[in-house]
Amino acid sequence: MLKVPSLDLLVHELSRLPGIGQKTAQRLAYFILRSPDNLPESLKGALNEVQTKVQTCPGCFSVTEEHLCHYCADPGRDNQSLCVVEEPMDIMRVESSGVFRGRYHVLQGAISPLEGIQPQDLKIQELFEKIDKSLVSDTPVKEVILALDTDLEGDTTVLYLAKKLKDKGIRLTRIAHGVPIGSDIEYIDHRTLGRALENRVEI
Amino acid sequence: MLKVPSLDLLVHELSRLPGIGQKTAQRLAYFILRSPDNLPESLKGALNEVQTKVQTCPGCFSVTEEHLCHYCADPGRDNQSLCVVEEPMDIMRVESSGVFRGRYHVLQGAISPLEGIQPQDLKIQELFEKIDKSLVSDTPVKEVILALDTDLEGDTTVLYLAKKLKDKGIRLTRIAHGVPIGSDIEYIDHRTLGRALENRVEI
Repeated sequence: MLKVPSLDLLVHELSRLPGIGQKTAQRLAYFILRSPDNLPESLKGALNEVQTKVQTCPGCFSVTEEHLCHYCADPGRDNQSLCVVEEPMDIMRVESSGVFRGRYHVLQGAISPLEGIQPQDLKIQELFEKIDKSLVSDTPVKEVILALDTDLEGDTTVLYLAKKLKDKGIRLTRIAHGVPIGSDIEYIDHRTLGRALENRVEI
Repeated sequence: MLKVPSLDLLVHELSRLPGIGQKTAQRLAYFILRSPDNLPESLKGALNEVQTKVQTCPGCFSVTEEHLCHYCADPGRDNQSLCVVEEPMDIMRVESSGVFRGRYHVLQGAISPLEGIQPQDLKIQELFEKIDKSLVSDTPVKEVILALDTDLEGDTTVLYLAKKLKDKGIRLTRIAHGVPIGSDIEYIDHRTLGRALENRVEI
């Protein structure tokens, strides 16, 4: 260490970020310190803005600065199609595909018995309430698309939601597993390729 | 984008850091937002500390919070040996080797004609003045060790300093190039191995 306590503190704080180790944090801290255009000030400003302005959208549990988030507030979206994601950032990915025009619901995580994350820790009850409410409205939800991660936690959550939603009379789907576009089949793992074969589509 | 301006601003600021792209910045920004232990506040505090407390050491041009940095202020270090580095962080690396007990001088960069960095943009004049001053003192510098990067900029700076310092009657050395400890010779590039052979040492 350079025996400069404030720099060490900044290194410590930066190294708490995911994927940032001790050496990267040192490099970042020193870059911030030496930056000619007052990066510390603008970073502080941005952190302040996020702290004071960002809140949870009461409609979909994504993040927003307004009363409702951009997607909940948009009257032009399809109320009959609901996409369930784990995190707000996942909405961006789905949106960038340009294929989905319905509503979103953010679970704020996935069920993980290993990490002690139970259904009640997530926005799952809120999802059921939202669906039940919609079923007695003018525009009932017709399809719930689960766009969850394809890991153990995502799979567990899909199974849980499928069990709970199966008697509601709604179409319940999950985004397809398969070979990513542009990829070489040689490098695809056997489970993905197996799923891609099972779910093959007519040309 | 999630259409949340303050979050977008934080993503933008984070993506200005070296090695942090757009997607990583999004992940970091969202992590900061969701962190349970008020990471924005502690990051802001750390940035503030660095901004207000850290200054350049007038002795070696490293960073310090005191009048002189830890290594300049230490009376127990050898004044007759001077290690020249590019950046303050390099001092940490040299110190962690435990081999050097002399003084430091930070150039604050390296000569780079491509980036328009000339000798006068660095602390090179200050280095010459420090050496000249020491030569008329009780403890004249006997050896200057150049611990600069082994890239084009580092090599250019070494050549420049060697030319300017050759008539001062001081021993001028450069840290050795060679095979890193623990590495496999199979994976060493031919220039490094060539240098390691040229600079071979008696057993």
